[in-house]
Amino acid sequence: MATRHVVSIPVKSSAGRYRAVFDRGGLARLGRHAGAVLPSERVVLVSDAHVAALYAEAALGALGRARLRAEMVVIPAGERAKTLETARRLYDQFADMGVDRATGIIALGGGVVGDVAGFVAATYLRGLPLIHVPTTTLAQADAAIGGKTAVDLPAGKNLVGAFHAPRLVLADTATLATLPDRHMRAGLAEVAKVAFTLEPELLRLLEGAFELDTALQRAAATKARVVSRDEREAGMRMVLNYGHTVGHALEALGGYRRWLHGEAVAFGIRAAARLATLTGAGTAAWEERQNAVLDRLGFARAFPPVSIAKLFSYMSLDKKARAGAPVFVLTARVGVVRVRRSLSLGTVTRALASLGARP
Amino acid sequence: MATRHVVSIPVKSSAGRYRAVFDRGGLARLGRHAGAVLPSERVVLVSDAHVAALYAEAALGALGRARLRAEMVVIPAGERAKTLETARRLYDQFADMGVDRATGIIALGGGVVGDVAGFVAATYLRGLPLIHVPTTTLAQADAAIGGKTAVDLPAGKNLVGAFHAPRLVLADTATLATLPDRHMRAGLAEVAKVAFTLEPELLRLLEGAFELDTALQRAAATKARVVSRDEREAGMRMVLNYGHTVGHALEALGGYRRWLHGEAVAFGIRAAARLATLTGAGTAAWEERQNAVLDRLGFARAFPPVSIAKLFSYMSLDKKARAGAPVFVLTARVGVVRVRRSLSLGTVTRALASLGARP
Repeated sequence: MATRHVVSIPVKSSAGRYRAVFDRGGLARLGRHAGAVLPSERVVLVSDAHVAALYAEAALGALGRARLRAEMVVIPAGERAKTLETARRLYDQFADMGVDRATGIIALGGGVVGDVAGFVAATYLRGLPLIHVPTTTLAQADAAIGGKTAVDLPAGKNLVGAFHAPRLVLADTATLATLPDRHMRAGLAEVAKVAFTLEPELLRLLEGAFELDTALQRAAATKARVVSRDEREAGMRMVLNYGHTVGHALEALGGYRRWLHGEAVAFGIRAAARLATLTGAGTAAWEERQNAVLDRLGFARAFPPVSIAKLFSYMSLDKKARAGAPVFVLTARVGVVRVRRSLSLGTVTRALASLGARP
Repeated sequence: MATRHVVSIPVKSSAGRYRAVFDRGGLARLGRHAGAVLPSERVVLVSDAHVAALYAEAALGALGRARLRAEMVVIPAGERAKTLETARRLYDQFADMGVDRATGIIALGGGVVGDVAGFVAATYLRGLPLIHVPTTTLAQADAAIGGKTAVDLPAGKNLVGAFHAPRLVLADTATLATLPDRHMRAGLAEVAKVAFTLEPELLRLLEGAFELDTALQRAAATKARVVSRDEREAGMRMVLNYGHTVGHALEALGGYRRWLHGEAVAFGIRAAARLATLTGAGTAAWEERQNAVLDRLGFARAFPPVSIAKLFSYMSLDKKARAGAPVFVLTARVGVVRVRRSLSLGTVTRALASLGARP
């Protein structure tokens, strides 16, 4: 009989503690896990069309075996469904179903499902109990942990949202088997981000022949530590935005279609590394070390030839911007992070142009 | 020189303390008040078409004198504007204006403006600093205090929302001079609610020749005390829903047009009082005492001949309902409140029918 290796990561939030559980094959035990943290036997499973086709049956079966009464609603797959309109449809469906404050919401899927189902759980009846069952590398290592929920506006990514801590995160790494290569890789940009900013050991792991589960768990545990200390991004959590200033702008510029979030973040990390070199915050060797890891993970090195002016217009709308000035997270070396609010337009333009963007 | 009587009521919330300031003529001092609690000089004034025509100039003037840089956005007046669609338009306008996390949002108007501007402030960029400047009896005595924000769905009132404490509530009772009689009266239903559930002295005040400012301040102070102890409605705050189970259902049934919130709550209180008598929780004398106060305040006594079945369908969707069963707040006498989750359909039907609703 195979032994089962379960890793349970504690997370603190203003609404109480919860656990991010890595349990390979754990989807079959979803009912037992969920029953332990939900206030009633009633649950609504929210998933996207793609993930539902693969895992809804298993999830509903597991919920049924634990005598939970589950209904399901399905949203379209992809970042372009992360809208207020999708939220509105979920609200209306919840009202039709008579969802009440004791009804648990289970978000089964990647970052988009977690974000939009999380936002709806945060705001329907001013808050419903929520469980994340992330099925992508991105969501398992990063998005499902920390209580951020959001939808996009045409003007930019995640512009509308709320903090809403889940009762549980259940990451079944076996579900990654069906993840397309491109998505599998994209999530590793967030793992690299954690390695570069906070975890020398994880960085060395990524530079060797690493085991996927281990890398995801390490990144998740580090994120859990950060958000436990700074849930609302008053300080330390800001570090987790490494690569995201340019990354979010690229995503928006590409209509949330051209690049996956992780792909855009990988470019954003390359841009931040170049900025550090140019401003003297970091060295060329440190920039190259980061680039080499991103290359190994399969991310394109050549920066897309997008308009720098357009990138700026999106960056100035970023949630962290002040008076239109974007904030940049820079690294001097692994674990040494600086938040810069006053980089000159010229410096940023120079960095982006040297990478291949169009001035 | 006239002396200025300012009443400053402290309120606790999970996001920190704030004050509800009653200051007659205080709109002229809005800039100074706001400047003291906001993180930057940039503010967006949100108001409705009706209130903006009356008070936007004074508000913008006061903000300008304090060197705050103010822009204004106007939403349609009335409960029917309290929708996700209005919120979406505000989000888009905020994005166009480049609103950032240091931009203060000032909600100038009644409960609707406070609720929808508050919800947008709660969710745009995951939270913006908010100031309420309530201009109705309802908002000054009740809605602006306690951090509840919401929009309505077609299915029911306040079904989507968030808790978001303001930095300040500034109630200028001089603005009530332009309030139509019907609105002036409607807000007093919330004052009566507080009197019946929590404040024997306020009840005696309402039974005499009371001064409006005093009654509003007393109700506000009591609400502040309750929400300071129970922000998230885990227990005591539930008392403030007295009259609201039937009240909210009536409002929805009337398409948010037939009755003002306070008018619906007044009927809801009469229904709750009847229920208490019927179930033996209260006495007929206590019911009549409440009815007499509502009569004095000018509320119609004859319950509208609406369908009880329709009322039930709205009540079962109420945010406090569990598995479709509405929760009722009953009073045995002033200050003695019971929350009942298990009143039988028959009892409630009997109470509503005896008041004049259609079985």
